[in-house]
Amino acid sequence: MTDPLSPNGAPRPRIVIVGAGFGGLAVAKALAGADLPVTLIDQNNYHLFVPLLYQVATAALSPADIAEPIRHILSEAPNVGVVMGQVAGVDTDARAVRLADGSTIPYERLVIATGSTSTYFGHDDWAPHAPSLKSIEEARAIRTRVLQAFERAERATDPAERARLMTIVVVGGGPTGVEMAGSIAELAHHALARDFRHIDPTTAQVVLVEAGPRLLTAFPEALAAYARGSLERLGVRVRTGEAVEAIDATGVTLGGAVLPAATVIWGAGVRASPAAEWLGLAPDRSGRIPVAPDLSVIGRPGIYALGDTALCRDAAGEPLPGLAQVAQQQGTHLGRALRVALTGPAAGTSPLPPFVFRNRGNAAIVGRHAAIFDFGRGRRLRGFPAWLLWAAVHVVLLVDFAQRARVCLQWLWRYLTYRRGARLITAPPAPRA
Amino acid sequence: MTDPLSPNGAPRPRIVIVGAGFGGLAVAKALAGADLPVTLIDQNNYHLFVPLLYQVATAALSPADIAEPIRHILSEAPNVGVVMGQVAGVDTDARAVRLADGSTIPYERLVIATGSTSTYFGHDDWAPHAPSLKSIEEARAIRTRVLQAFERAERATDPAERARLMTIVVVGGGPTGVEMAGSIAELAHHALARDFRHIDPTTAQVVLVEAGPRLLTAFPEALAAYARGSLERLGVRVRTGEAVEAIDATGVTLGGAVLPAATVIWGAGVRASPAAEWLGLAPDRSGRIPVAPDLSVIGRPGIYALGDTALCRDAAGEPLPGLAQVAQQQGTHLGRALRVALTGPAAGTSPLPPFVFRNRGNAAIVGRHAAIFDFGRGRRLRGFPAWLLWAAVHVVLLVDFAQRARVCLQWLWRYLTYRRGARLITAPPAPRA
Repeated sequence: MTDPLSPNGAPRPRIVIVGAGFGGLAVAKALAGADLPVTLIDQNNYHLFVPLLYQVATAALSPADIAEPIRHILSEAPNVGVVMGQVAGVDTDARAVRLADGSTIPYERLVIATGSTSTYFGHDDWAPHAPSLKSIEEARAIRTRVLQAFERAERATDPAERARLMTIVVVGGGPTGVEMAGSIAELAHHALARDFRHIDPTTAQVVLVEAGPRLLTAFPEALAAYARGSLERLGVRVRTGEAVEAIDATGVTLGGAVLPAATVIWGAGVRASPAAEWLGLAPDRSGRIPVAPDLSVIGRPGIYALGDTALCRDAAGEPLPGLAQVAQQQGTHLGRALRVALTGPAAGTSPLPPFVFRNRGNAAIVGRHAAIFDFGRGRRLRGFPAWLLWAAVHVVLLVDFAQRARVCLQWLWRYLTYRRGARLITAPPAPRA
Repeated sequence: MTDPLSPNGAPRPRIVIVGAGFGGLAVAKALAGADLPVTLIDQNNYHLFVPLLYQVATAALSPADIAEPIRHILSEAPNVGVVMGQVAGVDTDARAVRLADGSTIPYERLVIATGSTSTYFGHDDWAPHAPSLKSIEEARAIRTRVLQAFERAERATDPAERARLMTIVVVGGGPTGVEMAGSIAELAHHALARDFRHIDPTTAQVVLVEAGPRLLTAFPEALAAYARGSLERLGVRVRTGEAVEAIDATGVTLGGAVLPAATVIWGAGVRASPAAEWLGLAPDRSGRIPVAPDLSVIGRPGIYALGDTALCRDAAGEPLPGLAQVAQQQGTHLGRALRVALTGPAAGTSPLPPFVFRNRGNAAIVGRHAAIFDFGRGRRLRGFPAWLLWAAVHVVLLVDFAQRARVCLQWLWRYLTYRRGARLITAPPAPRA
């Protein structure tokens, strides 16, 4: 068995992949079984199916339903070693990745697929009052916050405070914000409807705030308008063209007025991981690393970047969007290309072929039985058929069979009953009263 | 709709139940629909199926698989209000329960079903190094500790440290310790077997330590011997007659010698909740409140106690064991008795009938396909048939249909594949290196 990690002086690793998201995992899978030692580094021991994270935040799914141990996914790939660790930097001269624990992992080819994080546009003081949705811990914290607000409302005697506790504001009209708002409205107006004795959860206010003129700017206007209508039918108050001016423990300030809200969820901005800093490069204003068509980092031979952390332009010169399908296609492409380049007849010498993105359809779910799909070039789908397609696609994309069966079962059950199985308050209570 | 909580001056509550475990929940269910206002108080918003908690700690099930929102269970019982709160004490003169948040909840009848907690027999300094298994948070912490130890072992270069990281000690030879040890052995020797490149998880050492002369003292000697054999076949080293002398960050001290272990799990002692203090009563040495045959607390009219926190003797004068089935039967009995006493023709005057325990069989699971069952009076079952019966019973006992289907599916899947779906390291890292 090859020894990719080699703390004991075995052959040094050749390919190091940082990040086990859709991109990094696809690279590792494409290299599985090759005669190349590969090391995959991630700060977690699991691959997270981020597109369904909002369902964990709204008690529809459990963390384990959308996360799969990385080692398990790659257990059949003896040439791929997995390291659970936090990357602190890259020493490009010595060709080694530095981990936070002080250890280093040498590489000959480095693939950076570290994704993106939330940004508060310089208002980091908003963060404690408005958690974002990037990790299982954050999803669990949001779930706890929403459910705890209803518990407090049930015991509140002051009508104003009760109303504040039953107001949830979602900031950001992108897919994350739209899906969160719709899912929270369902949770409050259906799943919790009969569970309280003093409050009526169906009167809970869910407000979706977007600074831009409309929702879902990545989608055609007609689909975005349909999505807005669907959300409003679910009871979501959509406020576009209104920028958030402040967020604190009492609520959100919009247009000079304070909207009292006990729960605020941040889905407004993402910024690429600090990979550019690691490489001493100037990122674009979203923090992304510019890459060549073959995904190689310009000016850093032997280093590649993909997914949300890379700025990759299509043939028309347009930057590719930060979508799971982009990262996954890039990862598969790069993994195969490296495999050929490093093991093929002309090993090492052949330049990598350019990446070409194939749009498999961009989707957003708007409530329990509606979704929108945009396949580009005017081809679209919306409503229940789109929801069915979305559900089918996401179930198939889930890594593990048992997960698929479990998620199918839960979706079916939840669809038939409006129930939410994972309504547990387990994270430490929110800091605010 | 009746108004059991009545923050707004509606009729004051009559029956207050503290604790939504098997006992308290059974009382509430028996009172559901009665013309009696009932308030159920618990520190969590969910009922936890504690007998399966060890499967969460060993990554076989997710928290939501064994926990069900209390409000959801009682959503069809309009006369039962649920309060999520921590009880700080009881004012028996004013007949009110004091919560940690300073609020009070008045009662006319009070049922205390607050269960038990772990005790370290005066060695509370052991607690940070040896978590027990009483809550979802603890189960998640144990899961994280065990999995993180293997991650560290994979990267460890010092053989001694690697061996320490791959040694798990379970303290306590009762059902909890036996089930934990068996399940951890399976996790290490099967589920993780092919997932690492430098360590061989099948060489992980699982040690079960019991101070007494044998395991499972609550079971007949033959069944306990069988259980020991089953554990040893799973690769568990069973050490009976050895008391733990010390536990620290390096490991466990037994018989003067230190057993280096990165993971220590405490399953040795339980102590009743502090309910006796609340009532100003002298508890027995396990902290339990002595109760009369009708479960009323002696010397505290209108107050009842049941489950792990009550000392209830059977006809032979033997204390009833701390089992879920005892608490559940007591809860159903008390709930029905109170319903009759408070709503029947001779409301208020009739004394409550005495509780009689019917042994439905005491079980412990020893590994993937073996269990022991003791039905008393010499009737027993062991091995695979016992495991099947145990699995069937526990699935049926689970509260919610969707849960049952999910748990069935996962058990079947895990049984066929040895897989563990919930192998997520999500709790904050363990304090020790």
